[in-house]
Amino acid sequence: MEVDMVMNKQIVLNNYVNGSLKESDLSLRTSTICMEIPHGCNGAVLVKNLYLSVNPYLILRMGKLDIPQFDSILPGSTIVSYGVSKVLDSTHPSYEKGELIWGSQAGWEEYTLIQNPYNLFKIQDKDVPLSYYVGILGMPGMTAYAGFFEICSPKKGETVFVTAAAGSVGQLVGQFAKMFGCYVVGSAGSKEKVDLLKNKFGFDDAFNYKEESDYDTALKRHFPEGIDIYFDNVGGKMLEAVINNMRVHGRIAVCGMVSQYSLKQPEGVHNLLKLVPKQIRMQGFVVVDYYHLYPKFLEMVLPCIKEGKVIYVEDISEGLESAPSALLGVYVGRNIGNQVVAVSRE
Amino acid sequence: MEVDMVMNKQIVLNNYVNGSLKESDLSLRTSTICMEIPHGCNGAVLVKNLYLSVNPYLILRMGKLDIPQFDSILPGSTIVSYGVSKVLDSTHPSYEKGELIWGSQAGWEEYTLIQNPYNLFKIQDKDVPLSYYVGILGMPGMTAYAGFFEICSPKKGETVFVTAAAGSVGQLVGQFAKMFGCYVVGSAGSKEKVDLLKNKFGFDDAFNYKEESDYDTALKRHFPEGIDIYFDNVGGKMLEAVINNMRVHGRIAVCGMVSQYSLKQPEGVHNLLKLVPKQIRMQGFVVVDYYHLYPKFLEMVLPCIKEGKVIYVEDISEGLESAPSALLGVYVGRNIGNQVVAVSRE
Repeated sequence: MEVDMVMNKQIVLNNYVNGSLKESDLSLRTSTICMEIPHGCNGAVLVKNLYLSVNPYLILRMGKLDIPQFDSILPGSTIVSYGVSKVLDSTHPSYEKGELIWGSQAGWEEYTLIQNPYNLFKIQDKDVPLSYYVGILGMPGMTAYAGFFEICSPKKGETVFVTAAAGSVGQLVGQFAKMFGCYVVGSAGSKEKVDLLKNKFGFDDAFNYKEESDYDTALKRHFPEGIDIYFDNVGGKMLEAVINNMRVHGRIAVCGMVSQYSLKQPEGVHNLLKLVPKQIRMQGFVVVDYYHLYPKFLEMVLPCIKEGKVIYVEDISEGLESAPSALLGVYVGRNIGNQVVAVSRE
Repeated sequence: MEVDMVMNKQIVLNNYVNGSLKESDLSLRTSTICMEIPHGCNGAVLVKNLYLSVNPYLILRMGKLDIPQFDSILPGSTIVSYGVSKVLDSTHPSYEKGELIWGSQAGWEEYTLIQNPYNLFKIQDKDVPLSYYVGILGMPGMTAYAGFFEICSPKKGETVFVTAAAGSVGQLVGQFAKMFGCYVVGSAGSKEKVDLLKNKFGFDDAFNYKEESDYDTALKRHFPEGIDIYFDNVGGKMLEAVINNMRVHGRIAVCGMVSQYSLKQPEGVHNLLKLVPKQIRMQGFVVVDYYHLYPKFLEMVLPCIKEGKVIYVEDISEGLESAPSALLGVYVGRNIGNQVVAVSRE
């Protein structure tokens, strides 16, 4: 039997990222891959990758981690992230050739053989941009949904602060919180992003953290009565300032701490004592624990998208070759909205 | 009408405590007090104080706080804390002359006029030492009960770590956790306390934190599989080490942070990023929110005390004059068990 081998461009991690990310930490390699699932490889799915997700947490995974719960990406191996893919071949009973799927096991490569699929979702509704399935309809959307509604226990009329608010998750947290009836302020790192928050996403207010010499003062200005809910994407000094400005019984959903990812010695948070009198609940979470809510989430969010009630901004870079520079962009905050790499349009 | 005035010895705060507590921050003053509630003063209770509670959080309240949720004790005023008292006169419909009560409004003085009583509980069961009502049957008992059962959401077989474990609250958290079916390790600051934990309170294991150069190593030794529940009484570096050793879905009840109370610049906690992959919930709490559970708590704990299933160790110092030195003792960890000042035995 003739085996159909094709070229497979891949983005490979050259070495552990230690401190700041450089474009030279990644390289393009061309490998070959068989267009059929090898004999005896049951329960596998061979996919063609269409859209790849470029999320800040990848930078963490490229370092040498002492967090056993996060898989490190090993030097010499292809980056793996969330992606939207098309099934080319399947020996798994749940997936069929021709189906579109999204999940966390897409390689940064043209084709991926997923040997043990998990958290792989079939794409049913194709009336929306396919790239949304690595954004509002994928992991970032579920993160915003579960983080806000399940972890933050919001009540109508409460005050909400979101950091990295123009990012893949933040823009949705703000919009969900507004729809729910909260007062929402976001922070981001440029005038353009702040304008987006106020004029496009409908945040009540927003500020550019890079223009604030003292976060405490900035928060007091925006929340004279204090903060009920903080959706934390950045950690560090901002988290400390938020704790100073939290109200009694406040809740903090810790989604990520992007300000800390590249520091050799992370910043200390010095005011945790205030958790006691303020009776603050601070909770880290990982979205995979909430994927059972995905059907319920789709039911809520799909009509909102179609009726224009929720808006989603993406920053799409073209071609697999653009992935390293896209990642670097996320790392320095150059992207506006969810950073996606379009590997192929179909 | 003749007014019955008597002498009233009081312990007064001389100045805000800034940094470390000194005995000279407090002084004994003799004042006079009327043995009847003044005319027109409705809803008040005049009490004779029997036992006063000497809790670490008092040291916080003696400083200049920027925590609006905690009342500062003002220089020139009498220290106020939890106490067991006898009602001498009452214009409040709920309390009668001769009744014994406990609550948070006892002055460090022989007699206190409580003008607006709140969180004041009648003592019904007198088959136990009265001083227990500033300990196992009072605020510390309820703190251990609510903190462990309501905040920590324990499951049988989980691993529990308690700091300040020989203290007023810690000794009970450990015993409640053992009764519930958890594996419990405590830390304390002397050999004598560690022996108490292991031999009297039935902790599975215990260690003297002062003999450990590296908390991380100590915790790895005692919890090779990690910690599910941390009952935090100390904060700071120990909290940081615990976060390193927490298991996925761990819970931290933040009850107090005694290691931080006297620091001008509190220690930073540098590894909060780990809350995310470990999905840790960290929650500050204040016992007054849980006093509605007091009857349920008594129902559980009174039989345990009478049957010897729960043991409570107190450190009673005699006479109001001993209160400043007792407080200093708590501050440096000299007390063994709950520190109480016996003002009067009846």
